[in-house]
Amino acid sequence: MSDHGPARVTGLDVIDIRFPTSRQSDGSDAMNPDPDYSAAYVVLRTDARDGAGGPLEGHAFTFTIGRGNDVQAAAIGALRDHVVGLPVDAVCADPGTVSRALNGDSQLRWLGPDKGVMHMAVGAVVNAVWDMAARRAGKPVWKLLADAEPEWLADQVDYRYIEDALSRDDALMLLREGKEGAFAREALLLERGYPGYTTSPGWLGYSDEKLVRLAEQAVADGFTQIKLKVGADLADDVRRLRAARAAVGADIRIAIDANQRWNVAEAVEWTKALAESDPYWIEEPTSPDDILGHATVRRGVAPVKVATGEHVPNRIVFKQLLQAEAIDVLQIDAARVGGVNENLAVLLLAAKYGVPVCPHAGGVGLCELVRHLSMFDFVALSKTTEDRVIEYVDHLHEHFEDPVVMANGHYTAPTAPGFSSRMHAASIAAYRYPDGDFWAADRAAAEQQKGSHA
Amino acid sequence: MSDHGPARVTGLDVIDIRFPTSRQSDGSDAMNPDPDYSAAYVVLRTDARDGAGGPLEGHAFTFTIGRGNDVQAAAIGALRDHVVGLPVDAVCADPGTVSRALNGDSQLRWLGPDKGVMHMAVGAVVNAVWDMAARRAGKPVWKLLADAEPEWLADQVDYRYIEDALSRDDALMLLREGKEGAFAREALLLERGYPGYTTSPGWLGYSDEKLVRLAEQAVADGFTQIKLKVGADLADDVRRLRAARAAVGADIRIAIDANQRWNVAEAVEWTKALAESDPYWIEEPTSPDDILGHATVRRGVAPVKVATGEHVPNRIVFKQLLQAEAIDVLQIDAARVGGVNENLAVLLLAAKYGVPVCPHAGGVGLCELVRHLSMFDFVALSKTTEDRVIEYVDHLHEHFEDPVVMANGHYTAPTAPGFSSRMHAASIAAYRYPDGDFWAADRAAAEQQKGSHA
Repeated sequence: MSDHGPARVTGLDVIDIRFPTSRQSDGSDAMNPDPDYSAAYVVLRTDARDGAGGPLEGHAFTFTIGRGNDVQAAAIGALRDHVVGLPVDAVCADPGTVSRALNGDSQLRWLGPDKGVMHMAVGAVVNAVWDMAARRAGKPVWKLLADAEPEWLADQVDYRYIEDALSRDDALMLLREGKEGAFAREALLLERGYPGYTTSPGWLGYSDEKLVRLAEQAVADGFTQIKLKVGADLADDVRRLRAARAAVGADIRIAIDANQRWNVAEAVEWTKALAESDPYWIEEPTSPDDILGHATVRRGVAPVKVATGEHVPNRIVFKQLLQAEAIDVLQIDAARVGGVNENLAVLLLAAKYGVPVCPHAGGVGLCELVRHLSMFDFVALSKTTEDRVIEYVDHLHEHFEDPVVMANGHYTAPTAPGFSSRMHAASIAAYRYPDGDFWAADRAAAEQQKGSHA
Repeated sequence: MSDHGPARVTGLDVIDIRFPTSRQSDGSDAMNPDPDYSAAYVVLRTDARDGAGGPLEGHAFTFTIGRGNDVQAAAIGALRDHVVGLPVDAVCADPGTVSRALNGDSQLRWLGPDKGVMHMAVGAVVNAVWDMAARRAGKPVWKLLADAEPEWLADQVDYRYIEDALSRDDALMLLREGKEGAFAREALLLERGYPGYTTSPGWLGYSDEKLVRLAEQAVADGFTQIKLKVGADLADDVRRLRAARAAVGADIRIAIDANQRWNVAEAVEWTKALAESDPYWIEEPTSPDDILGHATVRRGVAPVKVATGEHVPNRIVFKQLLQAEAIDVLQIDAARVGGVNENLAVLLLAAKYGVPVCPHAGGVGLCELVRHLSMFDFVALSKTTEDRVIEYVDHLHEHFEDPVVMANGHYTAPTAPGFSSRMHAASIAAYRYPDGDFWAADRAAAEQQKGSHA
C-alpha cells in the first residue's frame, strides 16, 4: 500500500526480446523456416508493497517469431492509458473488467476487431494482470482459477458473439459441476502432473538420424505422444513418418503438423497418403480461418483426427469450429487470444461441446503459461486428462524464473505464485533487441568478420 | 530512369495523419461513438523519372479511427525492406509478386496470419504499388484493371486457401467473359458514373431533425438508397427509421447498419422489430468473424437482406460467407484486406457465387479508392450495376488531389492516372499527428484555455 491513498498501477513497460533460434533450425516447419523466437514483453508496475521483495508487478508477453516484434511492442504500449492509474485492489479482484475495457476501446477495436497484433497486445496485458492477481493471492494461476467461485469465474467471460453456443447459465452449470471432486483431482495433479507430448524430434530442419534419435529419447523420457512437422515434400514426409513409427513402435501416438501449408483438397490427399503410418492427428491442415475447410478435411481424413487452434484469433472462430464439428482436438494458445479471460471462454466452449483441449506450446514461454490453463481445466472444468496432452518443446526454459519441469513425460504442477511468465533479469538484459548484450556482441562479431574479409 | 542502372524503389515513408472528426459526431455509430478518422499513410519513393513533375511515387494508406494509427504506421514501416531496392519496372509490371512477397514473410505472418494490423499494412503497401503502376501506365486503376489481359489478371490472385471455391481456371473464365461488351460498358460508365448511396443522414449522434433534413436532401441529390445506423436503443431505432421512411417515401431503399452490435439471436429479433419500415439490408448484424452466425441471421430476417464485409479480414472469410450462403450483399473495403490483389480475389469469388458487391466507404479516402474496384467490376467482371451501389459519405474529400465527384447520386469515373489515393501536401502538413499545424495549434489553444481557467 502506498503512503498516498490506495495502491495503483504506476507504469507499463514494454521490452522487445529476441532469441537467435533460427541459427539451429529449432522450430523449423513447412511455413516457418527460420523463426527467431521472440517476446514483446510487458511489465505492469505498481506501488503496492505486497510482502517481501519490492512492489507488486505483473509480467507477461506476446510470443512472436522475430520480425515485427517491435510492432507488437508498439501495440502493447498503445494500451498503457487503459491500465496506468487503476487501483491494484480492483484490478486483482476482477481482471474481467480490465479485459473488457481493453477490448472495448472503440478506436483500437478498428485495428482488429478481436484479432491480430492489437488483440494479442490485449492478451499480453490481460495475462500480466493475472500474473499480478495470482501473486497477490499467493497462488499459481491454475490454482487461483480452480479455487474461484463459479459465479466469479462465469463473470470473467465475455459472452458477446458466443451466446448462441455458450450462455452464462451454461458456463455456471459447467463450473459448478467442475467443483465436484476437485480436491481429489488437485491432489492427483500435484502427484502425477499433467501429460505432455513432445515436438522436439520433429522439426523439419532436422536430419532423419536426429529425428530417430530424439524420437527414441522421447519414449525413454516417458512421453506417449510425439509430433512431426510435415507439408514441405510428400516423399520426405512418408519416409520420415515411417522412420519415426519404426523407432517408437505401434503404441506411441504420432501427431503430424502441416502448419497451414495446404489447400483443402490437398490437405485431404496428403494426409491420406500418410495414413499408412497411423498418424494420430493432423494439425493445422489449412488456414486457421477456414472453418468450413476444416470440416471438409475432417470428413475426408477420418479416422485421423483434425486439430487446430494456435493461430485461431478468438473465441468466435473457436465457437464455429465446434458448431461445425470441424475439429477433434482444440489447441488453445496462451498468448494468441485476449489472455486468460478469453481462454476461459474457449475452455468452457470446448467442455460444452465435449472436445478435448490439447494446448499449443513451445516458442518462448508458451509452455510456462499454458500449463496453468490445462491444469485448471483438469481440476475444475473438464475433470479428465483422457486424450488430453500439452505440447512440450525443450527450448529456452532456462530464461524463466519458474520454468517448466517435466517428469516421466508429464508437466509437474507449478506451485509458485503467479503465471510463471517472468523472465530472469539477466536474460532480458542479454536478449533485449537490438541493444542487449548478446545482440551487441553479435553485431560486433559480424563487423569484425566483415573487417577480416575486407 | 536513373543515371545508374534501372530505376528502383528508393524509400518507403510512413506518415501518421489524423482528423478531429469526433468533435462533430460525424461517423458515430453503435460501436464507434467518437471516431477520429485517420490514415497511416505510405509513400513509395523511386528514382524513376516518368514524364513531368519529379520522380514517380506511389501513395496509399490504411484507414483507422484514431488511437492505434501509430501502431498501424509502425507495421507499414516493418515492410520497408521488402520493397526498397526493387526495380520499378518489375514492380509495376507485376504487383502480384510484391503482394506475395509481403504476405509471405514467414516471421511477420505470425502476427496475423492474413488479418489485423499487419495484414492492413500489407494492403497499404500493395495499394501504393498499384497507384505507382497506374501512374506509370497513365491510367486510373479501374481502367488499368479493365484493360488488362485475363491471364495477367488471373495471375494477380493468390489462390491459396480459396482454391476449393475459386480456381485459376474459374477466374480466367470469368475474366474472359467479362471482356465481352466491356467497351460499351466503359462508355456507359464514363457517361453515367456508378450508383452510390449515402450514409450521411444516418449517424447515430445526429438529431431526428437533422436525420430527416439530410434524408430529404439525399433524395433531392439523386440518391435512391440511404443508410441509417442502428443498434444502440430499439425504441430510438423504430422512431428514427419511421421518420426516415416518411421523409423519403416507399421507393427509396433504406439500409440499416448495426456495426456488429448484436449477438446472433438479438440480431434476428431487433431486425424483425424494424421490418415494419421495410429496411433493405441489415449490415454487420454481428461479429464479422461469425460466418455461421450470419447464415443464421440471414435465414431469420429474410426478406431483409444481410450485408457485411468492411471488417472481414481476408479472402478466406469472404469465401466461407459465400459458401455458407450467409450474405446477400458483399461489402469489400479498399483498405482492410491485403490491397487490390486480394480484393480482386474477393470480386472474383463474388462473381462466381453471383452475390452483388456494394463496397464500404466513407472514413477518409475510402470513397476515393474503392470506386476504382467497383468500376472495374462493372466494366470487366460482373458486367452489371443492378443491385450494386457504392457507399458515399461527404467527409474529408477536400484533402485529396483527385477527390470523388458525385453527380445525380452517382460516382463519376475518375480519369486521372493512379489510385486517387494521394492527399494534398497542405493537408498532410496540417493533420500530421502529433506535430502538424492543426494539432500544434489545437494543443496551444487547449493550453491557453487551461491557463485562463487557472
